Amino acid sequence: MRGINTDKITLAHGGGGKKTEDIIRGIFQKYLNDPVLAEMDDGAVLEDLVFSTDSFVVNPIFFPGGDIGRLAISGTVNDIAVMGARPLYLSLGFIIEEGFEISSLEKILISIKEASEEAGVRIVTGDTKVVEKGKADGIYINSSGIGKTLLSPPPSRYRIEPGDLVLINGEIGLHGTAILVAREELGIKADIKSDVAPLWPLIESIISPSVKFMRDPTRGGLAAVLNEIVEGMNFGIRLWEEKLPVSQEVAGICEVLGFDPLQLANEGKVVVFVKKEDAESVLEKMKSHPLGKQAEIIGEVTDEFPGKAVLKTTLGTHRIIEQPMGELLPRIC
Amino acid sequence: MRGINTDKITLAHGGGGKKTEDIIRGIFQKYLNDPVLAEMDDGAVLEDLVFSTDSFVVNPIFFPGGDIGRLAISGTVNDIAVMGARPLYLSLGFIIEEGFEISSLEKILISIKEASEEAGVRIVTGDTKVVEKGKADGIYINSSGIGKTLLSPPPSRYRIEPGDLVLINGEIGLHGTAILVAREELGIKADIKSDVAPLWPLIESIISPSVKFMRDPTRGGLAAVLNEIVEGMNFGIRLWEEKLPVSQEVAGICEVLGFDPLQLANEGKVVVFVKKEDAESVLEKMKSHPLGKQAEIIGEVTDEFPGKAVLKTTLGTHRIIEQPMGELLPRIC
Repeated sequence: MRGINTDKITLAHGGGGKKTEDIIRGIFQKYLNDPVLAEMDDGAVLEDLVFSTDSFVVNPIFFPGGDIGRLAISGTVNDIAVMGARPLYLSLGFIIEEGFEISSLEKILISIKEASEEAGVRIVTGDTKVVEKGKADGIYINSSGIGKTLLSPPPSRYRIEPGDLVLINGEIGLHGTAILVAREELGIKADIKSDVAPLWPLIESIISPSVKFMRDPTRGGLAAVLNEIVEGMNFGIRLWEEKLPVSQEVAGICEVLGFDPLQLANEGKVVVFVKKEDAESVLEKMKSHPLGKQAEIIGEVTDEFPGKAVLKTTLGTHRIIEQPMGELLPRIC
Repeated sequence: MRGINTDKITLAHGGGGKKTEDIIRGIFQKYLNDPVLAEMDDGAVLEDLVFSTDSFVVNPIFFPGGDIGRLAISGTVNDIAVMGARPLYLSLGFIIEEGFEISSLEKILISIKEASEEAGVRIVTGDTKVVEKGKADGIYINSSGIGKTLLSPPPSRYRIEPGDLVLINGEIGLHGTAILVAREELGIKADIKSDVAPLWPLIESIISPSVKFMRDPTRGGLAAVLNEIVEGMNFGIRLWEEKLPVSQEVAGICEVLGFDPLQLANEGKVVVFVKKEDAESVLEKMKSHPLGKQAEIIGEVTDEFPGKAVLKTTLGTHRIIEQPMGELLPRIC
């Protein structure tokens, strides 16, 4: 129970950062201790299968660039894909609030159909529950999925070594910023679309033994993912600020609100660790794919700063990339 | 859209009966039409795997005989088991309302641990989301699972023939009645416990090619399951009222409230269709298992009444067992 200073669940427990890790390690793993679960990966590797689950509670349900349906497909497809597996089958579990418009449900189902076609996955089983008004917020969707591993050995952070390079397939922080703008109560106006997309087609085009590790930086953004990777390792990760793809709109909103683009959620990005000599060829493959046109080599694995992620700023100084306490906003996904 | 006379989701759409079928066929299948999904089984048969999902929104979270944790494990284990598959791996997706007591979460996790041990399944992946106060009702849990098929050909309602006998492993209506009593607003007092249990150990003991079909009668009870089985078939099912295991407590509550025990939910029952000559031996195996002590042969498949389920009453008359419109209560599971 160390690290849990409250006896009630708070929104921060769901933010995907330090507090989420605390409750998973302190409470869930106290009772559920399967060795595969304890690896805390995005999915479970079971012989030649990968099995993954995610519940989606995003607010608002419809946002620029997507909706909860596209998000539910993309989120689980991406969790499977970054494990080096081809997503094959998805299940969908709907919890719907009484009074929800059937026309909205139809829009969501159309998004689900489109995204599953883009990803090449089959939706093979489902479940629907309805709860009373005031016991949900429109609709929540769980998606679970099964994939078939294509890489042996599978990608693993234990394969990362100093000298490896770090790639990303495009601009960061778009999903987090799009949700921020869509929550009109904040009074921000900007023309930003979420990047939500199923990444399997892109990942399929780069998958090879020289890809050592992949992760999709969702809740808590790149900062959360990089900190998970370096934890307990004898290497560090250095990102180069001038190489980080950040759009003017995202940079502007971050400046006004004091946010860090490294901490903002993405739903169509994958960070890839590649052997140095293969990085250029992986970059070219990414750039030739519609989901990777703005791909960049954004950093390197180093034996300086062991156990830390750092940013080399455009001024030449280094600053620590902190593990975020959680998402800046609740219900980003 | 035929059969949907409203443009909003109603509680009845979640009841597991006629209205749920309407929305699945009229809305979901309009967009999602994978042939495996269209079979509308409790799980998807994928080569040698069975894949199943269920979300649990039961109210109250803790009830006599169990809680939402035991229910989440049992529900998905049973859906896999009735497909003739050994449940192997489960995922859990939690949606928790801000302010939920961590001590309650711990109780639920203990139930989950116990039920998964009873079932012999591993919990290998999970996800936790937190929503604001008033956007859930304490806790909702999705469980999805993977099993390995043991029977080839798999159990199928298309294998059922006139002459086959119908077995059940014990008293019906216990889960539905326990939830009814636990909702104190109805002012009923009775000493009834839910039958919620993972049935795999019982099913493993009876599984054989002479078991033609199995189903767990949850939402909508035996009435819903039997109607699904006979739909479009050239056989009927006749239950014998005097053989139906109904406890005095359940019978009493049904009499007072005008409910039909055939329509009440079960969470630890399996209805089994067996070749006549093997029925006694399957019955003996059931009775020798702790989960089947009160097992009975409750009816027969007949070429009378094609496409219908009927009850032969203790008076010798026949009455049609109607397809329920849905569960009598919302959020039974």
